[in-house]
Amino acid sequence: MNAPHEFAELLALTREPFPASRKGRIAGSRADIQVPVRDVALTSGETVSLYDTSGPYTDPAARIDVRQGLADVRGPWIAERADTESYAGRLARILDDGGTHEGRDQARIEQLRAEAAALQRTPRRAKSGGNVTQMHYARRGIVTPEMEYVALRENGRREWMAEYAADTERARRVAGNPMGAQIPRIITPEFVRDEVARGRAIIPANINHPEVEPMAIGRNFRVKINANIGNSAVTSSIEEEVEKLVWSIRWGADNVMDLSTGRNIHTTRDWIVRNSPVPIGTVPIYQALEKVGGVAEDLTWELYRDTLIEQAEQGVDYFTIHAGLRLPFIHLTAKRMTGIVSRGGSIMAKWCIAHHKESFLYTHFEDICDIMKQYDVSFSLGDGLRPGSGADANDEAQFAELRTLGELTQVAWKHDVQTMIEGPGHVPMHMIQANMDEQLRLCHEAPFYTLGPLTIDIAPGYDHIASAIGAAMIGWAGTAMLCYVTPKEHLGLPDRDDVKQGIIAYKIAAHAADVAKGHPGARYRDDALSKARFEFRWQDQFNLGLDPDTAREFHDETLPKDSSKSAHFCSMCGPKFCSMKISQEVREFAAERGLADEQALSEGMAEKSAEFRAAGGEFYIPIRQA
Amino acid sequence: MNAPHEFAELLALTREPFPASRKGRIAGSRADIQVPVRDVALTSGETVSLYDTSGPYTDPAARIDVRQGLADVRGPWIAERADTESYAGRLARILDDGGTHEGRDQARIEQLRAEAAALQRTPRRAKSGGNVTQMHYARRGIVTPEMEYVALRENGRREWMAEYAADTERARRVAGNPMGAQIPRIITPEFVRDEVARGRAIIPANINHPEVEPMAIGRNFRVKINANIGNSAVTSSIEEEVEKLVWSIRWGADNVMDLSTGRNIHTTRDWIVRNSPVPIGTVPIYQALEKVGGVAEDLTWELYRDTLIEQAEQGVDYFTIHAGLRLPFIHLTAKRMTGIVSRGGSIMAKWCIAHHKESFLYTHFEDICDIMKQYDVSFSLGDGLRPGSGADANDEAQFAELRTLGELTQVAWKHDVQTMIEGPGHVPMHMIQANMDEQLRLCHEAPFYTLGPLTIDIAPGYDHIASAIGAAMIGWAGTAMLCYVTPKEHLGLPDRDDVKQGIIAYKIAAHAADVAKGHPGARYRDDALSKARFEFRWQDQFNLGLDPDTAREFHDETLPKDSSKSAHFCSMCGPKFCSMKISQEVREFAAERGLADEQALSEGMAEKSAEFRAAGGEFYIPIRQA
Repeated sequence: MNAPHEFAELLALTREPFPASRKGRIAGSRADIQVPVRDVALTSGETVSLYDTSGPYTDPAARIDVRQGLADVRGPWIAERADTESYAGRLARILDDGGTHEGRDQARIEQLRAEAAALQRTPRRAKSGGNVTQMHYARRGIVTPEMEYVALRENGRREWMAEYAADTERARRVAGNPMGAQIPRIITPEFVRDEVARGRAIIPANINHPEVEPMAIGRNFRVKINANIGNSAVTSSIEEEVEKLVWSIRWGADNVMDLSTGRNIHTTRDWIVRNSPVPIGTVPIYQALEKVGGVAEDLTWELYRDTLIEQAEQGVDYFTIHAGLRLPFIHLTAKRMTGIVSRGGSIMAKWCIAHHKESFLYTHFEDICDIMKQYDVSFSLGDGLRPGSGADANDEAQFAELRTLGELTQVAWKHDVQTMIEGPGHVPMHMIQANMDEQLRLCHEAPFYTLGPLTIDIAPGYDHIASAIGAAMIGWAGTAMLCYVTPKEHLGLPDRDDVKQGIIAYKIAAHAADVAKGHPGARYRDDALSKARFEFRWQDQFNLGLDPDTAREFHDETLPKDSSKSAHFCSMCGPKFCSMKISQEVREFAAERGLADEQALSEGMAEKSAEFRAAGGEFYIPIRQA
Repeated sequence: MNAPHEFAELLALTREPFPASRKGRIAGSRADIQVPVRDVALTSGETVSLYDTSGPYTDPAARIDVRQGLADVRGPWIAERADTESYAGRLARILDDGGTHEGRDQARIEQLRAEAAALQRTPRRAKSGGNVTQMHYARRGIVTPEMEYVALRENGRREWMAEYAADTERARRVAGNPMGAQIPRIITPEFVRDEVARGRAIIPANINHPEVEPMAIGRNFRVKINANIGNSAVTSSIEEEVEKLVWSIRWGADNVMDLSTGRNIHTTRDWIVRNSPVPIGTVPIYQALEKVGGVAEDLTWELYRDTLIEQAEQGVDYFTIHAGLRLPFIHLTAKRMTGIVSRGGSIMAKWCIAHHKESFLYTHFEDICDIMKQYDVSFSLGDGLRPGSGADANDEAQFAELRTLGELTQVAWKHDVQTMIEGPGHVPMHMIQANMDEQLRLCHEAPFYTLGPLTIDIAPGYDHIASAIGAAMIGWAGTAMLCYVTPKEHLGLPDRDDVKQGIIAYKIAAHAADVAKGHPGARYRDDALSKARFEFRWQDQFNLGLDPDTAREFHDETLPKDSSKSAHFCSMCGPKFCSMKISQEVREFAAERGLADEQALSEGMAEKSAEFRAAGGEFYIPIRQA
């Protein structure tokens, strides 16, 4: 286990490509649509293309300068739409970087802000009265480049689909049980448009985040995962903050939330957004609370509104907003085992009680919609009343808030603002399906975005596993994005290794869900790895896995020699006991004896088994004394 | 990650009790029934009793001498039944310890055998023509001390049951969805007898393993887990072999299978059984194959039969026997992605094809029953044709074998031999329920014992997680015991840490299943931990977890000071953002404002919300310009 702040020791970004992998591109209908995939070259000569979240960082050809930020993928698309204008933007204030700073930090802070200044893009917003959300375009029948990009990305390379189609038995096995999802065999740009138009999927893509490689969150697309990162106690460098992001997307985070608090949060956010190829989400109330010195009662709508604009201008793609936690619901938590466990939720609950007023997030919801649609920031409607223990799962407080989130979804949709719904949390297995059913019913199929859920409460130190179980189940049931949980959940700050452990556990959950749903692009990778396993192609087995480094390391602990990589056995059973080896011998053996033809073998056997059944009318042979 | 053979470095057994824990005893109807529990003392003054698999090793008062073996718990019970006789036993042969040995090992081997000789108990068997299985007693209406022991153990201490009963809402939440299981609120000895009599549960307890602390495997009892251990390349000492066992049961293994191969397997088994408080299982075909130098074709019924008797005399509690893999089924694996992946299965398949004969395990099945009932060895009917990849899941080969296992179950029951059924393996989530349904239907509710299943194939290095997902789901569906998978699965030999990781992942799966099924003894621990979490009783939170050491270590990485153990916040959010802290403040706040009375608060709020709805007939407030 690494030291908590190991990130601080890093001087450079992780740039190595994955083993035997190169960055491939799927070309779209126009030259500037180039969807990245990871092409893994197998020792068998085949190539397997994998969905790739890692961005240009795994492309040795890419020139990366964190002080410049990433290349501008969407710039031309946004410009062509000619419905936005650039403007001076809101005036940055010292408060933006986290309250008053002790003198000794002042110099460092100024330096950081100066560095960040170079990163600043001039903000854009919709022309007066305009609406620049992907949902708004979709509802007017416009297929944007973002939508086409998503379609190509979800399909990946489909050479293998012919293989499966040709083998009906194989096709049947991979069909899965979609649990109500309607995933077409080929995702078309028009299909993406339709899903976004009806609110069943979102493409988080703030016009001020042109660096993003567009992706979709919706039950008819691959299940996605989110990783949370945050600034360290004392920020040490741009590289350090960006490396957290790079590390997360390397292992497969589709989205990243910046949950930074304290000092330099505005500046840190600049670095993260400018260098992120994946959508970035935040919880604006955290920064707002910083601005009032941590005193929840002192929060005001004006201050919060100003914070939303601040972050929208920076390019944040989605905001977690706990607008469903209403004053009338707070008393419902009084008898709970663990009360309110959402930070944003507890902050707003405190404000409501202090002022004995309804939440300003709720009363100003349409004002918020007006801001979201000018930048295409998506809602992630927060579940401030999610259960913090199995004992509180599916209670009235939770569902009262969910009903409200359903109402707010329709308000957001009235403004064509893209919306997803956050969900629990802590839910025993037998109560998981009800969460999905109620969310689909109350929120009209708006994408569900859950934290876990943790299926038990007794695994501190292993909550990534306790929650991966719930995440896989709710992902299969229709949840569109899973927010990861690390082994440090409930205990401390995740370090570099914890972040990786959490992400891998959630890639497993998301992939298990895709396979169970029968996503056309999911099972091919499993079959390619299984084939490599049976054929003792060790390198391919490692390289097709979620974590080639660890797989190789584990194998080498017992069989370090390179020759072992071609050995037809492994250290678990050794040559004499290797079932796969024997199993292959069995096939050869049968061939030698002219039993290659299954029909012949089968008939020979049928005869034999007939004898057994004949014996005394019993299916088994009468006892023969040894 | 530790070195693979770290066990070899150990000089002593792990004996420390768990933090704040002491060995408790539940007294039965007779003085010699003393069921162990782990009593955890909380800082709140409460005590929580936990199911305890760790045996005397965690009891500082226990005198342990691995060269003497454990105290004889069941001896008097077996003697009183007066239906067994002691006898000279089969003559040990050099072959028993793994074929011919190189000269340089001879001295060491003789020394090991000499050490083991001291452990030998004179074997017992049923008097001529007798049957000494727990099932045989159960069917004649006899409640054995073993059955009473199991009843007390499954119940644990039930003080808390009153608490739940008193709170109907709470009772509803913990009820769960039993998925067809029928778990009574209190497990009585008579209930255990009835479950064993009808074959729905087994109590693995060879009369030659009197050291065992009886436990039950069945869908109406707590879900159990099995850990596999095996000898090292070169056995170094008794302590080393016994420590693998002690380490496994410390973390919660209910059963342990000794999968040793190669040298000294007979001697190693003596040490393990004599020092094991949990049932020990083996796969006798492994040793039989050693005796014929690894040449499957040279296996004979006589040699195999001799091996069964050898291990039955040593006290092995259950045998994995792949009697369902029949000659007519072998060709069904020809088109598989990964063929036959069961070691025992592939060995027998090779024998069948080589001789073009039906498996001697099948043709001699009743001969085997005759041996099992003389010692009360339970069947674990092996799934030699289990799928080795998601692509092969639920295919004809797998289900043809399962049907045969169902037939063999009835043959075993005709002889009153206790029987459980082994299951897969690799199964995508959407195909898991069918495995349970078919097993219950074809095997007449005989306990199901599955390996995982792994829900995806792309997680080498993390298969304990990929399989814990499937294990939790199939456990909820009715599987009685889950065989663990370690992170090294498919890659190499598990080391000490891998064994622990695998066990913890499976304790999570098993507990998640118990909670989902609504096992009356399951949820109390979660609620106790959640309460401790909400009240910031850090020590209690650590000590009630599955792994107190790791939880404490993770917490201390960021907040090492002891004072932090009483801090009303943790390092994740810090004092300012701690939702639980704020949530408690909210309650106090409400109290101050005279809103303590929920009714009052609720009415006040109802009024407010009425205003909102009144406003323009809309549920939300019309936009107020900021």
